[in-house]
Amino acid sequence: MKTAPDPLQSPLLTDLYQLTMLQGYVDQGMTDTAVFELFVRRLPEGRNFLVAAGLEQALDFLENLHFTVEEIDWLRSTGRFNERLLEHLASLRFTGDVQALPEGTVFFANEPVLRVVAPLPQAQLVESRLINLLHLQILLTSKAVRSRLAAPDKLLVDFGMRRAHGAEAGLLAARAAYLAGFAGSSTVLAETRYGVPAFGTMAHSFVQAHDSEETAFEHFAHSQPDNVVLLIDTYDTLAGARKVVAMADRLKAEGCPVKAVRLDSGDLLALSKRVRQILDEGGHPEIGIFCSGNLDEYRLRELLAAGAPIDGFGIGTRLDTSSDAPYLDCAYKLQEYAGLPRRKRSTGKATWPGRKQVFRQYDGQGRLQKDILSLIDDEQPGQPLLVPVMAGGGRLAPPESLQTIRERLDAELATLPEPLRGLEPAPAPEVAIAPALQRLAEEVDRRQAERDE
Amino acid sequence: MKTAPDPLQSPLLTDLYQLTMLQGYVDQGMTDTAVFELFVRRLPEGRNFLVAAGLEQALDFLENLHFTVEEIDWLRSTGRFNERLLEHLASLRFTGDVQALPEGTVFFANEPVLRVVAPLPQAQLVESRLINLLHLQILLTSKAVRSRLAAPDKLLVDFGMRRAHGAEAGLLAARAAYLAGFAGSSTVLAETRYGVPAFGTMAHSFVQAHDSEETAFEHFAHSQPDNVVLLIDTYDTLAGARKVVAMADRLKAEGCPVKAVRLDSGDLLALSKRVRQILDEGGHPEIGIFCSGNLDEYRLRELLAAGAPIDGFGIGTRLDTSSDAPYLDCAYKLQEYAGLPRRKRSTGKATWPGRKQVFRQYDGQGRLQKDILSLIDDEQPGQPLLVPVMAGGGRLAPPESLQTIRERLDAELATLPEPLRGLEPAPAPEVAIAPALQRLAEEVDRRQAERDE
Repeated sequence: MKTAPDPLQSPLLTDLYQLTMLQGYVDQGMTDTAVFELFVRRLPEGRNFLVAAGLEQALDFLENLHFTVEEIDWLRSTGRFNERLLEHLASLRFTGDVQALPEGTVFFANEPVLRVVAPLPQAQLVESRLINLLHLQILLTSKAVRSRLAAPDKLLVDFGMRRAHGAEAGLLAARAAYLAGFAGSSTVLAETRYGVPAFGTMAHSFVQAHDSEETAFEHFAHSQPDNVVLLIDTYDTLAGARKVVAMADRLKAEGCPVKAVRLDSGDLLALSKRVRQILDEGGHPEIGIFCSGNLDEYRLRELLAAGAPIDGFGIGTRLDTSSDAPYLDCAYKLQEYAGLPRRKRSTGKATWPGRKQVFRQYDGQGRLQKDILSLIDDEQPGQPLLVPVMAGGGRLAPPESLQTIRERLDAELATLPEPLRGLEPAPAPEVAIAPALQRLAEEVDRRQAERDE
Repeated sequence: MKTAPDPLQSPLLTDLYQLTMLQGYVDQGMTDTAVFELFVRRLPEGRNFLVAAGLEQALDFLENLHFTVEEIDWLRSTGRFNERLLEHLASLRFTGDVQALPEGTVFFANEPVLRVVAPLPQAQLVESRLINLLHLQILLTSKAVRSRLAAPDKLLVDFGMRRAHGAEAGLLAARAAYLAGFAGSSTVLAETRYGVPAFGTMAHSFVQAHDSEETAFEHFAHSQPDNVVLLIDTYDTLAGARKVVAMADRLKAEGCPVKAVRLDSGDLLALSKRVRQILDEGGHPEIGIFCSGNLDEYRLRELLAAGAPIDGFGIGTRLDTSSDAPYLDCAYKLQEYAGLPRRKRSTGKATWPGRKQVFRQYDGQGRLQKDILSLIDDEQPGQPLLVPVMAGGGRLAPPESLQTIRERLDAELATLPEPLRGLEPAPAPEVAIAPALQRLAEEVDRRQAERDE
């Protein structure tokens, strides 16, 4: 389906300092090539690894970057910028190169996720939105994959759009969950836009709007004969289950067989066991149990370890807000300008200079053993992870399908040492700084020190 | 500035179950008037009160609600819905009434923030996006106001867009921060769209891209003579401060006086004291100190209590993600259908039936004393808080200015008992359930029990 241009993709969705800096760059003719890299400084507690995601939206943003006449007029009206800058912005397009980790790649602290090589004003301007797009999807995919690792054999569905932080977060959370191996999402627009399968049946209001629970179930079944999942906890969960048993044979004969019941409150372990018993004793072992309500990977693990007979989970708020780690310490930093490597030395925020590559090493069983961070032209053993994705402002390949990314992430997960796949904190694999990179950092420091004298 | 229609405002940004339920409602001709109320079940730890916000965007969503031909075609293509529903959706507009707390109103658990009174399919369909819009802005405004209470006399600026959860969250975070009394935001689009003043000067990359810090400062000052705030922590904060002192007289003579320096890393307490000393001893007491970097209300309180000579703060990630409480337990529940009050009794999630009003009582000093939750037609002492904002699908008044909302919130904060204004947890004022509401809940339960027999 075609969609209108999105005003939230405006280049004005940026920090003001990008524009005030561009004023300085353009005034001084500083339009040489700049190299910026986006990376996460450290992993939050509760994450043993991160998953690259959001590249597709980032490239889309770069490809479509431009200021409209109205936007230039608005900038002029603020009185903050001179005509030279406004002219520069009016014709600005992204003409640079991008190298990146393919979506679905597992990565660790300080490893570049994406590198932009472009004239300084372009590379600077895109910082805020690039971080905004990549941060969110890395955050949510890295969260979602934990539920998948906790419940690898269960049907998992993203239910979180309503409490995601705004429209875009809700939409992209569905994409992130799907990349992480979820079966789909309740968010319809994610099916429309991305082909993420939509799931959903009824809310409590449907039951409440009817004069009785039975009538509600009956009406729903006849309206959605292929999708009969009945929510049984509006009044009394066990009574709800017994009503389902009493109706199930008839509904089946009428062509609308009950596929599952849903529980959304109470003690899900105890209730799921008793509901399973009621369904089985009622002759309906084929009716599944689907649960939702304040779930996350820890709760899934707990329920499954205790033997809860639950076939699928709807995971919402805690997933869509990554509630135990709602942000990542990620940054987009200048590593080189006009051919000279650069380095920030701020306390606790120093960066490694130059254009970098991650070389990944595996053991004999194909398990991830160690990463080496070095310069792109250094020779190191291991598989280089960043690949070219854009040159001269154009994509080097059509967008990847979500299926391709899901499969890549699957394969990546298979390479992880067992402790990293668990929910408990595990030490990250070594990310070694290669001697070439170490030497370059020292050179840059020396050069800076000489200037300071 | 005019903006294109926003595809994220599509009615397909909803949960699939809204549409499957609508199929049931339309099949059964259940289009009588429904009453839904949106409320927060309980306050998260670390919030003594919440602030109503986001009503403007919610009304905008309701006013513009419609399905395009392409959206109907897409729904048809999924095979999930019959023509009767598709026809219903094609002509669906929001024709209902809305009562709500004005933006900027302080509220507590179980108090309705917004009530929708509309034909059941309309009132049901809008649930997901209404929650999504109101949840985010209540969350962020309630977070932002805490920084304002911690540092009432300081210049506060929202810096968080890059790590907000997507474009809309970044944009609305700026609005929320401004409603809460911030001076503005770094997000340019928030000035374009809402008139939230934009703030910003330079990032580390600007300094790094130059061969020396002095040249960077010089270039910036000449390009932005009215806005000279220099970032001094790229290499060595104190050396940076001394460079500013050495240049300040000349820059002033050249028409670009330094207004402030910015610190973004390190020990902000120690550094701000030493930088203040360097600036003062250098004869520049007029140059302010602005700080940023991992700040939130707790850090502000700590810095100010320790006497940090800081004039303003840029608050980013922890604000824009409400990181200590990244979601609210809010719900949108059916309270009445076809003239009959309704109630959900799910464990831990039971609701109060009927159309409700909050009556607020103050003591002799104008301090908030107690709220009474009752039915709208009940007579209770105190000021009724919910007001009509939409009738028959049309707004009853033009959008409020952000200034009006800021002033309302200001006045509300002045009514709060001192403990509630602090950062430490304080008990919420009593929210009493009036006898009339109590009786109605019992009646609804009795009716339900009779049906169940």
